[in-house]
Amino acid sequence: MNETLSLLYSHRSDRNFSDEPVSDEALCSILEAARRAPTSANAQHISMVVVRDPVRRARIAELAGGQKWIAKAPVFITVVLDFYKTGVGVELAGSKQVAQETMEGLLAGVIDVGIALATAMAAARSLGLGIVPIGGIRRDPQGMIDLLELPPHSFPAVGLSVGHIAKPAQQKPRLPMEVFRHDESYHREGLKEAIVAYDAALLDYWRHIGRSDGQAWSKNTAEYYEQMTSRPVKLAMTRQGLTPEK
Amino acid sequence: MNETLSLLYSHRSDRNFSDEPVSDEALCSILEAARRAPTSANAQHISMVVVRDPVRRARIAELAGGQKWIAKAPVFITVVLDFYKTGVGVELAGSKQVAQETMEGLLAGVIDVGIALATAMAAARSLGLGIVPIGGIRRDPQGMIDLLELPPHSFPAVGLSVGHIAKPAQQKPRLPMEVFRHDESYHREGLKEAIVAYDAALLDYWRHIGRSDGQAWSKNTAEYYEQMTSRPVKLAMTRQGLTPEK
Repeated sequence: MNETLSLLYSHRSDRNFSDEPVSDEALCSILEAARRAPTSANAQHISMVVVRDPVRRARIAELAGGQKWIAKAPVFITVVLDFYKTGVGVELAGSKQVAQETMEGLLAGVIDVGIALATAMAAARSLGLGIVPIGGIRRDPQGMIDLLELPPHSFPAVGLSVGHIAKPAQQKPRLPMEVFRHDESYHREGLKEAIVAYDAALLDYWRHIGRSDGQAWSKNTAEYYEQMTSRPVKLAMTRQGLTPEK
Repeated sequence: MNETLSLLYSHRSDRNFSDEPVSDEALCSILEAARRAPTSANAQHISMVVVRDPVRRARIAELAGGQKWIAKAPVFITVVLDFYKTGVGVELAGSKQVAQETMEGLLAGVIDVGIALATAMAAARSLGLGIVPIGGIRRDPQGMIDLLELPPHSFPAVGLSVGHIAKPAQQKPRLPMEVFRHDESYHREGLKEAIVAYDAALLDYWRHIGRSDGQAWSKNTAEYYEQMTSRPVKLAMTRQGLTPEK
């Protein structure tokens, strides 16, 4: 197995960071990898905001619902969906930008957010650094917009804590390949059984690592999804002029 | 520089595929890397549909607006945003799933689509294979839904052609790091100048590789975004029960 595959297979979130700073060289490598990642039609509607300042990181930890590893890890990167940057280009070309008003624009841009995030994670982990992707910044997107002084038509889509690992985490088991891979067309058979077995396997895993609050996957997913309705994401998007109504 | 960084730095879409088939072993490695990639709160709302059948690939090439490399490359992977799979779990937990009705659910899921796609791309390229990410399947999402027999609450978000490379492509220049990276907060200065310079650099690049139809970035982005309003993405999502109104 090659080095990259072995890195990708071993993916995990390492929340236990040491105090060692992340070098500028390492940070530049991570950002350079993300900058060279593909974007839909080369539109490059992605920007990254790097926060090193501990006071600002403590504030982000709070906005994200009290995630203390954000305050601990020396670097926090926000992946910004950036239709402000492209808007300046579109205007230079003599047009009026409409991407931010379309569902197609939202999907294309947000997929590219995920690509940039995954590329930054792989780059950081290849340097031996630990990472935690942080969707929790969308608990208070307006707080992030204000803190990072984000321009109209841009949005703090997801974040990433980066630092040196004090104590490596273990890798959580996943649902089996049989319900991830489909050949030629989607198949539904065997799904319920696979979930029941996975729920049991995940509970075993939580016991194994001593996490007494660990839940079955189905219950955890149900609870995670339930709190989604209370997140002010659509409101913050609308205030930023991101209105995917078309 | 380590192997993974060097791979990520050299990212490019290779549209010139040979007839050599992709081995099952390579395909399994690509899917295994993607399966182990992170998802928001471990919800695993991602599935991949692998199409090898040449008649079906020809159909996808057509749905995607006549992209002939889809018919040529032996493997086409569709990354599916899959709230059907999670819905079965949520129901097993005795709840009613709402994620598919929220903007937060859409963002979390679509970011994870991008993560899965980027992970699959890195895995394939680490094996020496060529890849082309295909957003064009969203030109006719309903056609893809019908072809792949996708269940309710799922969506064909993006695709990936995978094959052996007949003739390697070159890497397109990108907007400079100065307008990708922001420190502590977003800065707007220098953006217009950077775009003007990049437009010129990209036109140089097109001339260098002999592409007479190559455009400046700002003009290309303006034209790419303009056709977004005509894509039936929102309609197809609504028919699948994906209504991010909350």
